[in-house]
Amino acid sequence: MIDFYSWTTPNGRKVSIMLEECGLAYTVHPVNISLNQQFEPNFLKISPNNKIPAIVDRETGSTIFESGAILVYLAEKTGRYLAKSGDARWKAMEWLMWQMAGLGPMAGQLNHFAVFAKEKIPYAIDRYSNEYARLMNVLEKRLVEAEYLAGDEYTIADIAAYPWVAATLPVVTKNFKGLVKHHEHIDKWLKHIGERPAVQRGMNVPPSN
Amino acid sequence: MIDFYSWTTPNGRKVSIMLEECGLAYTVHPVNISLNQQFEPNFLKISPNNKIPAIVDRETGSTIFESGAILVYLAEKTGRYLAKSGDARWKAMEWLMWQMAGLGPMAGQLNHFAVFAKEKIPYAIDRYSNEYARLMNVLEKRLVEAEYLAGDEYTIADIAAYPWVAATLPVVTKNFKGLVKHHEHIDKWLKHIGERPAVQRGMNVPPSN
Repeated sequence: MIDFYSWTTPNGRKVSIMLEECGLAYTVHPVNISLNQQFEPNFLKISPNNKIPAIVDRETGSTIFESGAILVYLAEKTGRYLAKSGDARWKAMEWLMWQMAGLGPMAGQLNHFAVFAKEKIPYAIDRYSNEYARLMNVLEKRLVEAEYLAGDEYTIADIAAYPWVAATLPVVTKNFKGLVKHHEHIDKWLKHIGERPAVQRGMNVPPSN
Repeated sequence: MIDFYSWTTPNGRKVSIMLEECGLAYTVHPVNISLNQQFEPNFLKISPNNKIPAIVDRETGSTIFESGAILVYLAEKTGRYLAKSGDARWKAMEWLMWQMAGLGPMAGQLNHFAVFAKEKIPYAIDRYSNEYARLMNVLEKRLVEAEYLAGDEYTIADIAAYPWVAATLPVVTKNFKGLVKHHEHIDKWLKHIGERPAVQRGMNVPPSN
């Protein structure tokens, strides 16, 4: 049994999708970040960086924070969605890191400056919308040459990137017309992954409304 | 033999430190990002996200980009600085991800807005200096409870965080007086790691001047 601390954000969805894909038993503990529940002492013991998601694996007692670490943990626990060795492993690992270090933080900054910030700062909006477009061009090129991020197989790299792209690409293409020029292969990938029943279930844990 | 594509930045230094720590034979290929060499077609074949570092392992033919993926690759190749299983592995993995997804990107944004950007935007400088201070508080707390990020042993989590903290903490504490309140344990950790001969060699590959 996995205790799963999460909220309705892309980083949380990565882990709920993975839990659903692996068919692991888990209990959701919603951490409502709009109520600052991520700063409560009991949560900080599990997640000292005060961010969701985090898990506790009751079988082993392991507590793990950071969505990328949790994905690798669950992949190695179950032997699924990450090859044990060889290029298939390293392609998945590099695209997982690309999501963790690039797509997630940069899409997050764009969302902050374009949506949340009361002060609208053109310099910052330009900076992060251009970086977002650059990242989507990199993703589109990758999906021209391979069906999934790591190659022929669906892996934790797709599971990491999907909730971020699904949440942001439609909004950005609508609000920044012409910015992301080519995304036909991304659209196909989004549709294909979005049809997976485990993804559909995972995208609703915890429920958005 | 490893072909190592890098420049004089913290993300590059992570990998040069790891190569030195593991005593692996490597050839440095400097990619001068101030001359935009990261956009050259031959480099993009190895690193489609146009960032350093990247490696090619001539033994296996594997090409890998993203510093975090390269660190895990070299750790698994050599059996060093990352436990094969158990909590020691997952503590290293979560703090590696914390560096990749949090410290690196956010310190990078602070550097951009406080140093590089011609337009000085107080909102953005406040946002990223406060986030940097928060991250340093998290790091300090961790180093109060453990000697290294993953616990008792020096791992790729320390190797990932060290070049970023070494490059930024002295500058930030000087330029934002009183912002990072407690960093005694970080200072001790910086000094301790900075004394390692492999770290000293790695921090100079490729040379800064």
